[in-house]
Amino acid sequence: MLRVSFSELMDILTRALLRLGFEPDRAALCARLFAETTRDGVYTHGINRFPRFVATIRNGTVVVSGRPVRLAAFGALERWDGNQGPGNLNAYESMGRALELAREHGVGCVALSHTNHWMRGGSYGWQAADAGMIGICWTNTLANLSPWGATDARIGNNPLTVAVPRPQGHIVLDMAMSQFSYGALESYRQRGEMLPVDGGFDAQGRLTRDPAAIEASNRPLPIGYWKGSGLSLALDLMAALLSGGLSTIHILQDPLREFGISQVFLAFNLPAVDPSGASAPMADEIVRFVQLPPGSKGERIRYPGEKTLSLRRENMELGIPVDPAVLAEIKAI
Amino acid sequence: MLRVSFSELMDILTRALLRLGFEPDRAALCARLFAETTRDGVYTHGINRFPRFVATIRNGTVVVSGRPVRLAAFGALERWDGNQGPGNLNAYESMGRALELAREHGVGCVALSHTNHWMRGGSYGWQAADAGMIGICWTNTLANLSPWGATDARIGNNPLTVAVPRPQGHIVLDMAMSQFSYGALESYRQRGEMLPVDGGFDAQGRLTRDPAAIEASNRPLPIGYWKGSGLSLALDLMAALLSGGLSTIHILQDPLREFGISQVFLAFNLPAVDPSGASAPMADEIVRFVQLPPGSKGERIRYPGEKTLSLRRENMELGIPVDPAVLAEIKAI
Repeated sequence: MLRVSFSELMDILTRALLRLGFEPDRAALCARLFAETTRDGVYTHGINRFPRFVATIRNGTVVVSGRPVRLAAFGALERWDGNQGPGNLNAYESMGRALELAREHGVGCVALSHTNHWMRGGSYGWQAADAGMIGICWTNTLANLSPWGATDARIGNNPLTVAVPRPQGHIVLDMAMSQFSYGALESYRQRGEMLPVDGGFDAQGRLTRDPAAIEASNRPLPIGYWKGSGLSLALDLMAALLSGGLSTIHILQDPLREFGISQVFLAFNLPAVDPSGASAPMADEIVRFVQLPPGSKGERIRYPGEKTLSLRRENMELGIPVDPAVLAEIKAI
Repeated sequence: MLRVSFSELMDILTRALLRLGFEPDRAALCARLFAETTRDGVYTHGINRFPRFVATIRNGTVVVSGRPVRLAAFGALERWDGNQGPGNLNAYESMGRALELAREHGVGCVALSHTNHWMRGGSYGWQAADAGMIGICWTNTLANLSPWGATDARIGNNPLTVAVPRPQGHIVLDMAMSQFSYGALESYRQRGEMLPVDGGFDAQGRLTRDPAAIEASNRPLPIGYWKGSGLSLALDLMAALLSGGLSTIHILQDPLREFGISQVFLAFNLPAVDPSGASAPMADEIVRFVQLPPGSKGERIRYPGEKTLSLRRENMELGIPVDPAVLAEIKAI
């Protein structure tokens, strides 16, 4: 692995996006979102994903000039059409609009239809928390999970992000409704390791920790078995109904053509109901109490977002580790 | 088991509540919420819970005359203090206020502090969906789960409800962040059965399906292991910060004195951004598609809320099965 500085990575990505036809300001924002995701260690939605992002531009799934357009508005609730624009730009703009609505109304909700994969969902959580607000967002996906009790995939893993601001470092939860992503299954298999807990079913319908058996059966496990199955369905229903867009049941099953998805962005203006800021220190108090006891293996308990922050500091200081082959591929775009 | 009609059960509960000092309208609403929960088959939060509810009135945890008072308001976001009132009345009033806010602002959010156990969280989901709106609500609880990697309980099982209206029967998800409740562990143990999947840790820190071993270690499993642990923390952070009330870390560990908890109620005015109702039929389309394939054991896939509806119909027709000893205990209050 090669280490490159954040600004160098930004430059490489921005130049590639300009060559793909992005307007300068949109190229810079899209590059920043990919670079930040890489800096935070999420390679699967950072630069390692960039070549596939480019492929979806070339096959017409992602429309470089596509921008969200408002379809309906009622106070704090708005419906936007993403017009197949780049998923991360659409999502960033939608959370930005939810934050604006929350500044005016206390709460803001933007439901976005016909958009594309938002890459790292956590990005829009960090965006909300950086603005001093609580943020929640989720997306539907193609059908990649079986409803509990069924054998074929009819629900999505529908990633959910919840972000709570804290001056000492925001709490940012970014989780899909599957226990392990297909990317995680692949890395366990490549390392020749079993999963730490059951991750899906084998071909005989038995729960298993064998990543290869789950890849073969295409039946990863929803978190909490029937519970994650229900939550996935509920997230899809809300995203499709609020946005008026597509449900998981309408989305094509080819990952290179997963488009037209629906998302929801919520912002809560905490300072508006706590003008003295009396409640804000509670976030730190809660996190410190939960971290306090040593773990069963002696390690300190981590809160969601903690590892991201320490890796972020390290990578800003030493440079971001990148695969030279991926970097060369991006430079050649 | 004895079957009693819904109205007879309502009468018995209302009379008991009047004797406990409830004003007539509040006695009727509180009785209705307990009776509906029983009718829908959720005995643990229906009449079987009523004697414990009475015990919390008698020990001063629940204040019969306590009512929510608004502390702060900014557009669609409000903070209310529950004044230790009966948890189900406080929650019903809070979701009602969130629905009012959503009628005015598109979205409504009520954060409630210093309240008591809301009994069945799903009740306030049905309330929102019956009003034609999407509803989300959650509560924090005393610490009854260990953060992932830790051995002592420092997070709550924080039940979450999501409700989506559908003319053919609402979709209502009502789930705690633990894989099995202590009530469920107890019934499996009493029936001499193992859990269908791992439900917690034994005294040696190994995952187990043995309900008695989990009751002994006090270490039930969060849904999705580390994922439910993170989601539980996020729900507590949001409830405590938005309401300005107490976090799980502040709540007493005695279940009979679990009070001063914090809750959040959200309502989304779907018809306001979909005045023609064009999106509404999608809820039924999605549910029917997910139900379509036969399950791996040949049974039909159920959506959250489906079983409730069929049981509700049956019990309204035949009467609600109740334990005669519990009924006698309530009549003697």
